[in-house]
Amino acid sequence: MGAEDAASLIDNGAVVGMSGFTGSGYPKAVPLALAAQIEEQHAAGNPFQVKIWSGASTGPELDGALAKADGIDFRLPYNSDPIAREKINAGEMNYFDMHLSQVAPMAWQGFLGRLDTAVIEVSGITPEGDLIPSSSVGNNKTWLDQAEKIILEVNSWQSDAFDGMHDIYYGTALPPNRLPIPLVKPDDRIGQPHFKVDPNKIVAIVETDIPDRNAPFAKPDATAEAIAGHLLDFLKHEVAVGRMPASLLPLQSGVGNVTNAVLAGLLDSPFENMTSFTEVIQDGMLDLLDAGKLRMASATAFSLSPEVAERFNKDAHRYRDKLILRPQEISNHPELIRRLGCVAMNGLIEADIYGNVNSTHIMGSRIQNGIGGSGDFARNAFISIFMSPSTAKGGKISAIVPMASHVDHISQDVQVIVTEQGLADLRGLAPKQKAKLIIENCTHPDYRDALRDYFDRANHSSFGKHAPNNLNEALSWHQRYVETGSMK
Amino acid sequence: MGAEDAASLIDNGAVVGMSGFTGSGYPKAVPLALAAQIEEQHAAGNPFQVKIWSGASTGPELDGALAKADGIDFRLPYNSDPIAREKINAGEMNYFDMHLSQVAPMAWQGFLGRLDTAVIEVSGITPEGDLIPSSSVGNNKTWLDQAEKIILEVNSWQSDAFDGMHDIYYGTALPPNRLPIPLVKPDDRIGQPHFKVDPNKIVAIVETDIPDRNAPFAKPDATAEAIAGHLLDFLKHEVAVGRMPASLLPLQSGVGNVTNAVLAGLLDSPFENMTSFTEVIQDGMLDLLDAGKLRMASATAFSLSPEVAERFNKDAHRYRDKLILRPQEISNHPELIRRLGCVAMNGLIEADIYGNVNSTHIMGSRIQNGIGGSGDFARNAFISIFMSPSTAKGGKISAIVPMASHVDHISQDVQVIVTEQGLADLRGLAPKQKAKLIIENCTHPDYRDALRDYFDRANHSSFGKHAPNNLNEALSWHQRYVETGSMK
Repeated sequence: MGAEDAASLIDNGAVVGMSGFTGSGYPKAVPLALAAQIEEQHAAGNPFQVKIWSGASTGPELDGALAKADGIDFRLPYNSDPIAREKINAGEMNYFDMHLSQVAPMAWQGFLGRLDTAVIEVSGITPEGDLIPSSSVGNNKTWLDQAEKIILEVNSWQSDAFDGMHDIYYGTALPPNRLPIPLVKPDDRIGQPHFKVDPNKIVAIVETDIPDRNAPFAKPDATAEAIAGHLLDFLKHEVAVGRMPASLLPLQSGVGNVTNAVLAGLLDSPFENMTSFTEVIQDGMLDLLDAGKLRMASATAFSLSPEVAERFNKDAHRYRDKLILRPQEISNHPELIRRLGCVAMNGLIEADIYGNVNSTHIMGSRIQNGIGGSGDFARNAFISIFMSPSTAKGGKISAIVPMASHVDHISQDVQVIVTEQGLADLRGLAPKQKAKLIIENCTHPDYRDALRDYFDRANHSSFGKHAPNNLNEALSWHQRYVETGSMK
Repeated sequence: MGAEDAASLIDNGAVVGMSGFTGSGYPKAVPLALAAQIEEQHAAGNPFQVKIWSGASTGPELDGALAKADGIDFRLPYNSDPIAREKINAGEMNYFDMHLSQVAPMAWQGFLGRLDTAVIEVSGITPEGDLIPSSSVGNNKTWLDQAEKIILEVNSWQSDAFDGMHDIYYGTALPPNRLPIPLVKPDDRIGQPHFKVDPNKIVAIVETDIPDRNAPFAKPDATAEAIAGHLLDFLKHEVAVGRMPASLLPLQSGVGNVTNAVLAGLLDSPFENMTSFTEVIQDGMLDLLDAGKLRMASATAFSLSPEVAERFNKDAHRYRDKLILRPQEISNHPELIRRLGCVAMNGLIEADIYGNVNSTHIMGSRIQNGIGGSGDFARNAFISIFMSPSTAKGGKISAIVPMASHVDHISQDVQVIVTEQGLADLRGLAPKQKAKLIIENCTHPDYRDALRDYFDRANHSSFGKHAPNNLNEALSWHQRYVETGSMK
């Protein structure tokens, strides 16, 4: 069926479960056709909006096109599309920002409502009628099981070698029927390679040949390399004092240039036989696999640059026994993260002097992307590390502030903070001990004296002196930025 | 050995792991003797302080006496003692406020340092030399395993019927050697009834006959009963629409009058065959067991009123197959809370209009008790409910504020908020949808118009309009309280 005909099966007000995680494996033709139909309806004066559930972020053909058409009434659980972000922050789109491990279980709980239609990209269909997953798994198993009707996009751009790489676990249940998840190493396969699907629910199959939204990564700059250097020194120290094995523990990392610098640093590190239990497989992990430093990686999606995606597609069979893609309720499951003891490495927008981290809301109100899986990993990790350049916007924003203007990760879930200035190991410290380390080790020199001054004065005048704060200036740096464009 | 002689085995600077959780099962003679010795040393001009690790809160003979003697340099993971609280908030005691599930694993990780001495209350010693636990388990298994020397208090006040009630799991490990925890029902016993101990490490055994710090509960007032009423209506509705079984799911509840009102309400509810998987067994649960409404309760400690403690001690054998006390790393384990799907019911100090909850820091700086196990339960529960009267201090503090002055539970972990005014079901909602419900359903009428006004103005003037905030007044209610003694 053509994408237009398939899209016409989606009605105004429908709840649509889309595939897609971190710009990979999302449907590319039907959402675009749906956006065009929504624009036509709007031009004719008719209301038309849908509710979109996904794995995580998708691509311009989905979130971008539908947001541009004012076609999204409600969105969960994560967004990084710039057009959708503007709509959300203009107050024109309802966005439910969720822990990624909780999307599938909460969909089964029922309070999110009924899923009308699933639109799922797959890389193929087996002779038995099972579905070969694409470059992300996300919540596809749940959408296929729950939706009343299913539209498939079979994308021939995706590598044939995907077949066999996925591990789809069908053992989840709602309480009181939940059982232990039998995974004890990142390497374990506990499910099956394909999605089951009820063929009676399939209302359309659309053929596509379109690449994922694979964004280029910038080469790590000196700042990213300095952050990676501090972090690698810390990991070496933890191994040296016997607190971590020489192969480290399963690595989880967010996506971006700082992470890629860390992964590049691991190429030259003494650590061998590493593993990764994470959300996303990115360029640097393929390099580590190629170099034999990383034994295997488990994730729910790819997020590759266009060049590395090409390289991967040519050579995908080589990686088939080293990569496992799982549903995000498994890749991000607290039970498994705690059991495996992940080394969690995530980015931050800002941290305050007591180690509370804001990952999502700029100036306390404007959402950037969403919490994603960072909460799943940070709270359950063996060690939870947050890293960021110490400033943003050319120095006009300090990543270290008196009080975070929004909190995603409470101080209990933030054990190490790293900037290019240095590293603060906050484990086992009381708030004021943390403040001294964060101010002295992590803050940019342009802001350090001001933070020392705030902390000193708060120590004298605060209501309580456990975590001293002066409430009438705790958010003044943010307010100054809003008013003047600079925190200085 | 006498308590004085035993206490003299603890040196200045020692790290001491004490038993005790929620005022039960803590050592009562040795800490008091240690406090006296510290006061003598201080009077003689000699420095003397120790670092105290425990399960959670203890009693006046421990935290109270040692804090009064200025004898505590560092304290983890939870405190509710008023004297220790004053020291912490005067900036005179370092306090590391932790998720209770993480204390034992983090102690094994090693970054907290070496544990010198364990001081553990037990209810008896078996002929084989194993230890019969007392009225709390807490971290005792870990302290006994880790400490270089061990002081035991054998408290004959504790019931003989404790023997067999405990379930001490010895299957934990550090990663990469962690395995699934084989518990699938709150009733499951996965360990053994006694603590193992290396007899060579025992340096003193002190006999005591002293009751736990069992505080009387006030009868629920009209406010607590109104909160319980809203909550029970909600639970009935969830059962009616098929989102929860008629026996509910394992109940977790904090401690206090509101919780006791909820438990009292459950006595008259239609729910049967309930279970509890929680931290603390309190009066109301014994009533539910007696009435046959609760099938069994799993916890790590008792927290009973003096009358009910007497009743329990007389009749403890009756409860032996209905109660299980476990180490707190098991009672609070994210893996188990997620698997069992607990109904988590915790208190709050304040919530903001977007559903972020502050459980710990009054006016953003003065710690009340600590996060305790609320983070373990709230993030992993089937449904996470927070409840509180809508005002405190005779109406001078609103429990609903524009912005929380400290965040312990991010909005993703707060699904329902209940006050005596009403209930806000926040599941699946975007921030502004949450704000409307919280303001209209939960806020006290004295503060409702002011919150509506804040929210309306923030909707116009906020930097971002995903979660609108006016930063220059977001904390003004708290500042007004600090300056005038009232948020009004």
